This record gives sequence, structure tokens and C-alpha cells, in this order.
Amino acid sequence: MHKLTQFRLCPRSRSIRLVLNELSIDAELLDERPWEWRPAFLAKNPAGELPLLEMGGETLLCGTYAISEFIAEEVSKHPAHTGPVPLFPGNREARSEVRRLVDWFHGKMDRDVTHEMMVQKVHNRHASGGPQAPSPDVMRALRTNLSYHLGYVAFLSGQRRWLAGEELSFADFAAAGHFSVLDYLGEVPWESYPDAKIWYQRLKSRKSFRPLLADRFPGVAPPPSYTDLDF
Amino acid sequence: MHKLTQFRLCPRSRSIRLVLNELSIDAELLDERPWEWRPAFLAKNPAGELPLLEMGGETLLCGTYAISEFIAEEVSKHPAHTGPVPLFPGNREARSEVRRLVDWFHGKMDRDVTHEMMVQKVHNRHASGGPQAPSPDVMRALRTNLSYHLGYVAFLSGQRRWLAGEELSFADFAAAGHFSVLDYLGEVPWESYPDAKIWYQRLKSRKSFRPLLADRFPGVAPPPSYTDLDF
Repeated sequence: MHKLTQFRLCPRSRSIRLVLNELSIDAELLDERPWEWRPAFLAKNPAGELPLLEMGGETLLCGTYAISEFIAEEVSKHPAHTGPVPLFPGNREARSEVRRLVDWFHGKMDRDVTHEMMVQKVHNRHASGGPQAPSPDVMRALRTNLSYHLGYVAFLSGQRRWLAGEELSFADFAAAGHFSVLDYLGEVPWESYPDAKIWYQRLKSRKSFRPLLADRFPGVAPPPSYTDLDF
Repeated sequence: MHKLTQFRLCPRSRSIRLVLNELSIDAELLDERPWEWRPAFLAKNPAGELPLLEMGGETLLCGTYAISEFIAEEVSKHPAHTGPVPLFPGNREARSEVRRLVDWFHGKMDRDVTHEMMVQKVHNRHASGGPQAPSPDVMRALRTNLSYHLGYVAFLSGQRRWLAGEELSFADFAAAGHFSVLDYLGEVPWESYPDAKIWYQRLKSRKSFRPLLADRFPGVAPPPSYTDLDF
């Protein structure tokens, strides 16, 4: 049995959970709270980053980059597999577009919005010196940054069926990891970005998404629209 | 002719320049100052991130992730190529270790040290409101973070010939991008980390490194040890 060490509100963990669900790869979920820096976790990944995927008790994969590329190679080389690389559709140029967008969401959007939003609204509730309330100035800046990223998703969705092209790809799941966490926190003004909303609605209706919609983190309740497929 | 849009003190740009030199892929260098956010540059890469590689006037590759994986595939599929994937040596598990470390340097080390060090010592000289001096508190924190990353490189180098294993890989060039920029800024206390110094000395002596050692950025002069191979 594979094991995925993850945190239920971590965007990168979520993107890999979605990918595993899409590809019907079963993995036991092990919960890790990233702000605890547990020695047993750091011994596995000294970077202290999530998620970690242990494949069949042998191979330890750290981080979305190593995990995504490994999964794509693993599934493609299976004797029963035919056709293009799963979730990396198309030719090399098309795969470069997928990778550019994965980097956009796990890199740029994480730096601009998600990482600090999680610190403000979740991690700081568990700060060692006691819970800290979000800073209004920081929250305002993060919401401004988020509107830019929503605009970019709306722009892409207005031109393509999925974010990187006509086929579903790792790019959609990278984006979904971030937007689903922000949606859990009630931070996404979907109504102002109808094309982004259509993209997210189609993704959220997939079977692979259901386990994520059932997740709850103690002390932080999602708004009712979080689980509503016709939000 | 390929074209690489880059900034001479950008760690990611440098890592790709080194890789291109190692693989004897000629590319014309186009200079871009990342803090200028030029519309013509943003039109090519809306993320505003470097480097950009235009392959033969057709394919536009944005960012180190898309560029590295494309180059590895491109070189491997060439009819004259035999043997393992260049700079991704070994089997899939070995490639995962390369990717984990690429992520370490371009992700974690960039967030912990290089990005903000560049802002403090280079970008802020060109701030729109006039030059800003580095903040002593920020610089102290960055230097503490840097010692942790030097310790990690020393740890890896004490166990392996190159950072990801016995063969040279993308991981070494990702790390070299960051350490060479910090070395240019006179910020690396090599003497305290002999194993890290041995690793960097071997890398710095390679022919692929020479063009980087010849680079100068106006107003920021490197220390004499920067170009000394017996530093």
C-alpha cells in the first residue's frame, strides 16, 4: 500500500491527492501538521515540505515536482498503458505548457496568496505563543493578489477547455489544490469571475474531488458553498 | 539560434546557462532586469519570471521546470544520443532525488536566502523611489538561513561525489546558480564548510562555468575570490 503524508488544507498535498484519485492509485493518508516540524517527519524530508509519497514501502518521493514526474513515468511504462502520458497530454511543447502552469500555481500563486493566507488564517491559530488573529493589512494585500490569479484562470478558461489546453492535466490539479483551500477558507469571489467559476465547477464535480470536499479541519469550518456543486 | 532571456545575477537563469553550456547547446543571451517588469517581457511570460528559452524561434519555454525537462527530453531523443538522460542520471528513483534537490534549491533556498538577498543588495539599488540600503536585521536573518543551506550542501558532499549521487546532475547546477550569485555578492563563508567548498571548487573549475565568472553587473563588483579557482 502506498502512503501519502499530507496536510488536509495544504494546496500541494491536495493537488497530489486529486491526481492519485484521478489515476485510481490507492494511498493511505497520513496526517502531518506542517507548522509542528516533527523530527520524525523531518527525518523523511529535511525540507519540511508536503506532500511525501511512499511508493510500495520502498521509494520515498518528496514534493510535488518529484511526485508528479514519477507518477507520469510510472503509469506510462505500465504494460497495460497505451496512449499519451496521463495528465501530461500532447507533445513536448504541450507538456511544457503544463509545467509552466504547474510552476505558476505551486510557485507564483503560492508565494503571492496561498502560503501566507494559510499562515494568517490557519497556522497562526496554532502559533507557539498562542493564537494570533489575521492582520487586516496582510489580508487585504492577499485578496488583491488573489483577484489577479482569479483573473488569469478566467482568462485561460475563456480560451481553453482546461487550463493548459483541451485536455485535463497536472496544471488543473495544481490550480485546484490552491483554489480549493482558498474556497474552504471562504476567500474566493467566484461570482466576479464567471469563466473561472465554470472551470472550477467542472473540476469540483469530478469523482476525484469528493474526498477533499468531505475534509474538515478542527476550528476552521468551510462556508456552505464549499461542498455545493452548484455554488 | 536559440535565445535565452535572463538576468546575469538571477540564480535560475545561471543554472540554465550552466546546463546549456554543459550540453553544448548554443543560445544567444538576452538581458532582462527582473525588477523592470517590461511589457514586452511580460507578454512572453506573464509570470514575470526568468529565464525564458526560445528554442529555434518556435518553442517558448518559461521557467526552469519547463526548460529542464524539455532539454532532457530533447537531448535524449536525438538520434546520436545513447545512454542515460543527460543531467538526470540513473533510474527513476535517482531522477526523483535530482528533482527533490532541484526543488530544494530553486524553491526552499530561494525563499530562505537568495531571493531576498538579491532584493536587499541588488534590486533595491534600482527601487523606483531611489536606492535603498540593505536592512541589517534582514541581512542577519538571511545569513543565518544561508549557513543552514551551506551545512546541507556540506552534508551531501561529504557522502556523495555530486549532490544527488555519483553523477553530475541538474541538482548541482540548480545549487550552483544560487551559490554563485551569493559568492558574487561576497556572502558565502566557504572556509567554515570545507566539504561544500570542495564541491563548489570542482564545479567552478568546469569549462561551463567560465562565462559566468566573466559576468559583471554595473555597480556591484564581486570580491577577488569570485573568479579565483583556488579561492
